[in-house]
Formats: sequence, structure tokens, C-alpha cells
Amino acid sequence: MLRVAYDELYEGLKRAMEHLGLRGERAALSARLFAETTRDGVYTHGLNRFPRLAAMVANGCVDVNAEPERVGGVGALERWDGHLGVGNTNAYAAMERAIALAREYGVGAVAMANTNHWMRGGSYGWQAADAGVFAMCWTNTLANLPAWGAKMPVLGNNPLVIAIPRMGAEESDLDVVEEQDFGRSTSGRGGHVVLDMAMSQFSYGALESYAARGELLPVPGGYDAAGELTRDAGAIVATGRALPVGYWKGSGLSMVLDMLAAMLSGGRATHEIPRESTRESGVCQVFLAIDPVGAGGAGVAAREELERIADGVVGSLTVAEPIEAGRRVRYPGEETLRVRAENMRLGVPVDAELWGKVKGLTF
Amino acid sequence: MLRVAYDELYEGLKRAMEHLGLRGERAALSARLFAETTRDGVYTHGLNRFPRLAAMVANGCVDVNAEPERVGGVGALERWDGHLGVGNTNAYAAMERAIALAREYGVGAVAMANTNHWMRGGSYGWQAADAGVFAMCWTNTLANLPAWGAKMPVLGNNPLVIAIPRMGAEESDLDVVEEQDFGRSTSGRGGHVVLDMAMSQFSYGALESYAARGELLPVPGGYDAAGELTRDAGAIVATGRALPVGYWKGSGLSMVLDMLAAMLSGGRATHEIPRESTRESGVCQVFLAIDPVGAGGAGVAAREELERIADGVVGSLTVAEPIEAGRRVRYPGEETLRVRAENMRLGVPVDAELWGKVKGLTF
Repeated sequence: MLRVAYDELYEGLKRAMEHLGLRGERAALSARLFAETTRDGVYTHGLNRFPRLAAMVANGCVDVNAEPERVGGVGALERWDGHLGVGNTNAYAAMERAIALAREYGVGAVAMANTNHWMRGGSYGWQAADAGVFAMCWTNTLANLPAWGAKMPVLGNNPLVIAIPRMGAEESDLDVVEEQDFGRSTSGRGGHVVLDMAMSQFSYGALESYAARGELLPVPGGYDAAGELTRDAGAIVATGRALPVGYWKGSGLSMVLDMLAAMLSGGRATHEIPRESTRESGVCQVFLAIDPVGAGGAGVAAREELERIADGVVGSLTVAEPIEAGRRVRYPGEETLRVRAENMRLGVPVDAELWGKVKGLTF
Repeated sequence: MLRVAYDELYEGLKRAMEHLGLRGERAALSARLFAETTRDGVYTHGLNRFPRLAAMVANGCVDVNAEPERVGGVGALERWDGHLGVGNTNAYAAMERAIALAREYGVGAVAMANTNHWMRGGSYGWQAADAGVFAMCWTNTLANLPAWGAKMPVLGNNPLVIAIPRMGAEESDLDVVEEQDFGRSTSGRGGHVVLDMAMSQFSYGALESYAARGELLPVPGGYDAAGELTRDAGAIVATGRALPVGYWKGSGLSMVLDMLAAMLSGGRATHEIPRESTRESGVCQVFLAIDPVGAGGAGVAAREELERIADGVVGSLTVAEPIEAGRRVRYPGEETLRVRAENMRLGVPVDAELWGKVKGLTF
């Protein structure tokens, strides 16, 4: 494993995006989202995912020249068509629009059809939180998860993201904050709370890592060939039968998120999305933003009040007696901030061979 | 077990509500919500929950004369104060307001502080779906769930409800539809899809039922006295350490739902809610409604398009090969419609002793 400086990673990805055909600002934005995802330790959806994007540009599933377009709207609710453009720049644009609607109406929603894989869903949660806005967003995916009671995958793992902004954190600056304060406000308080959860108990990426290490999963993660729940990651990869989070509960949640995404956007539902990984195109996403403070402070809440409540919740958890001595409860997003700080200090880990190809534009 | 006709149950509950001090329309609404919950088979939050409501009126935690009040608003986002009124009538009023905002703005949100237990969360999902509107709502609760990694309960089981309306279903009529069509549209299509999930894998009510029957849980539901995950429901009731749905994932989801509810409403977070069951008062709730069609059909979507997409998703699941022959995959809310139809036909099951007390106003 090689570590490269964040700026070098970003510049390399930007050139690679331009090489794929993305122009100007859009190449810069897509590269930044890929680089930040890698920096934050979500390696499956950062640099390592670049070859699949390149393949999908080559096979025509991703149109590097397409721009997302507003196709309908009523007040705070809008429908957008992603025109099969690049997934992460499309999603970023949709969240920007939802934030703008929330600033105007208190709450805003954008439903986007015909878009592509948004890579790390959490990116759009951090985006909203950095803008001082609450957000919720989700995507549908190809069928990769059996419904509860079904033999084969008919649901998607439909990641759900929920973001809670914390005071001052939006002013965090990569270059000036100390590691222990990273992503925290100048008042010394905590960073944003960002939940990014897929509807499978483990991602296929995680299952493959456990299998490669020959390690058992900590809890059952799917079914083996005999149809039994198992902690053997390799057996689950072989059957393709991962477990929905919470058994019947995650199965139901996955289904309703798919229905909301397809119905609100007028796009494809999971059962209509091609099942080959390099053909998974035309997915739907929903972006909800809530701004109780208001751009001009004219909302229903004051930032100080929000911060007091957030500090209270986070504080109540961090003082809870841990099961394992010294391992206190963490809030969603906390580990991201730790990894981000570490990777900014030591360099971002990359696969040396892949990084060589991306840098040399020989992918 | 005794079965009583729905109308008799409703009338008995209405008299009991009036006896508690609720006036006119509010007694009727609260009684209807309790009766419908019982009719739909959610026995823990229907008639069986009435004694606790009576106790909380007696101890002053629930003010039967309080009306919820709008205390702030900006466009499609409003804050309400529940003034510690009756939980189910407060929640119903909040969802009515969110629906009205969605009709005007496409999307609407109401955050309510200082309210009381809403009983069955799904009631407000069915309410929105019957109005032809998509909805999402959740509540915080007292601490009854350990965070992932913590020894004792510091999170709430914070039920989350997501509702998807289906065409024609809002015109379903208890009196005229046949059992097999119950809650379905006149076109013969399916009923609303309503997910109502708490953040614990099993409710304490369910754990107590398994323990009473001496049956093992189908999957681990919490920790025993030795701190091990167990399928022994009685052992979990004894420790009070139920398992969050999906382990670390439900733990994170519960935390962010609590933060959203408390921060958006300006109310109490889980760690501030009294832990005694008859003192669990002053909770917060969020009600989101989305109306893509619009009251006058001037929205971003046509009802026929929505129905086509919904039929496609439900259809794709119902044809999935089941693990157990003959037990096809069900959608959230489907079982509710079946039980509802059965209880309308045979009478609603009630505990005879409790029903006697409620009828005789001797609770």
C-alpha cells in the first residue's frame, strides 16, 4: 500500500476525469468527490471505483457530457432528470438544489431519475452539513439483496444518508485545524453527525475483505449454499444472498426507499435496473434538505439552540458505560473524521498499481 | 379472548375518553385511533395501552384539555408545541398540518415538541396514505435500547414510519369491500404500503410474548446476563438490553432520528425523557409529507404514473421465489390489511377483563 498526499490524489484524478471527457468545473468536482471519499477511508467507493466508472463511460452507460436538468417543480418539490450523466456530479447538483429550496421554504426535496451510481452516499450528507443544513438522501440500486422470505436478490441495498450539521463545523479548514480538533468547531465541540447506511448488514466489499482474511463475520451476514444464516463471508459471496439489516425490517425499509425514489422521480425501480455491475445505470435518488435556521437567521430555530441539543445527545452517549473498557460509544461520522485527519497527515492509502495507471492515464 | 364488533369497541373507547376528560371531537378522534390500532392487530398500542393513558392523565403527565399549537414557521416547515396533550390526537393534528403544507408546497414538515406517546406510529402513515400523500414520521422515546458498544440503554427505539399511497385505496370503505379486496382500490390493485418499524429488533411486548410461550426468538434479540447475544426472550427482558435492528446500524439510525426530532422541534432528546413508563412525557416527533400530484393535479406527477411504478415494485416482489413454498414475500402493511379484514368480519379481539373495565368506566 502506498500513501499519496491528498492534493496529488486530487490532481491525478482530475486529469483522469478530463481524460474521460469531463470538462472544466465538472472534472474538478467529480475528482474532488472521488478524492475526498478515498481520503475519508471509504476505499470501495473512491479511487478503487474509478475503473468501473471508466468502463461505464466506455460502454455508454455514463454520458460525461450530460448535465442534470429540472423537468418539473411545485414549490419546494422538484423533479430532475440526470440524463445518465456522471453519478457523483449529478447527486451533488441535486443536493445543492435541495439546500437552496430549504433556504427558501424551510424544507426542500429533489427527486432525480435517470442518474448513475453516486459513489459514496455520505458525500452529499457532508455537503449539506457543511452548508449548515439537515439532510436525508437515498438511492436505489440494482437488485443485490433477497427480500425477507425470498430466495434470490430482488431488492437493492439502497443506501440511506442522514446528516446533522453542527455549529462551526462548516468552517473547519483542512489546512489549519489540529488532528484532535479536525472537523470540529472552534468552540471545541464535535463535528457533523453523518449516518451513511446501506440496507445490507455488510457490503459485498466488506464480505470480500473478511473472506480474503479468512476471518468470520462478527454477526451473521447472509445465507450459505444450504440456505442457513452464516458468518462465513466467502459462503455469502458465493450465494449472492446477503442479509438485509435487521432481517424483515431492513427488507421492508429497502422496499419503501425504492418505491419513494422511483415514484417521486418517475424513474426506474430496482427491478428495472440492469443487474450487471458495469450496466447498473438509470437509478433514482431523493434529496431532502431542512434548514430550520434560514439563510438570514429568519427560521424557526437559532443555531445556538440546535448546538445545545446536539451537544447534549452526543454527550449523553459518550459518557455511557462501554461494554469494552476504553471503547466508548461513537456517533455516526466520528470515525470518518478520525480517518480523514490521519490520511491528511500521513497521506491517503492507494493501491500502487491502480494509482500508477490513473496517474499515467493508462486505465 | 373475547371478540367485539368494531363499532362497539369504538363507542366504548369514546365513552372512556370522555370519562378521562376529553371533549367532543377530540374524544372521538382519540377513541377512533385506539380502536383502529386494535382492529389492525397492533394490540400492544390499542386497547391494552388504555390503562397507561389513564394513569398518565391521573398523574398529570397527559393534559386532556391541551391543544397543540403552532409556535413558528417558515414556508413549508413549522414548529408545534404539543403542550403535553394527548399523544395520538396531537400526532394526528401534526400530520394533518404536514399534509396541508405538502398540498401547498409539494413537501411539508412539522416538528412537534412537548407531546406524548403517539401509540401506534403507523396510524399517521395510514392517515397520509388515505389522503393520497407520501409520508415519513418518527418519534423519540425514553431510553430503552443500548447504543452499540454500550452496556445500558441510552437510546430510544424511536419508531420510523414511511407511507406510500396507492391509487383508489383512499376510497376504500369498511362497509362495502369484500375481504379479499379490503383496503384495495376498485381497480383490484393493492393497498397502501406502510412501514412502521421501531429501532429494536423486537419490541418488549414481543419479547414478553415469546417468553410467556417459552419459545426461542427466531434470531438474536438482545443480551443475557452474561453479556452474550441470545434468542432467550426472558433473559433479554431481565437485562433490559434489547438489540438495535442491524446492531451498529440501527444504533446509529436511532441516534440521528432522536437528534432530528429534538433539534427540529426544540424539544427533549431521549436522554432528557423520564425513564419510568408512566412518566414518559414530553417527547418530540417529526412529520414529513410529500404530495407530488397536488390537490388540483398540478404537481410534478400523475397518479396513474405513480400507480404503474408502485404496481411494478409490488409485483416484482410477489413473484419472487419464496424460501418456504407457498409463503410469498409480503409488502409492509399487507398483513395489516389482512388482519383488519379478519377482525372486521369476526370482531376485534380484546382482553375480556380489561374490556369490561373500559365499558363499565371502572378503570
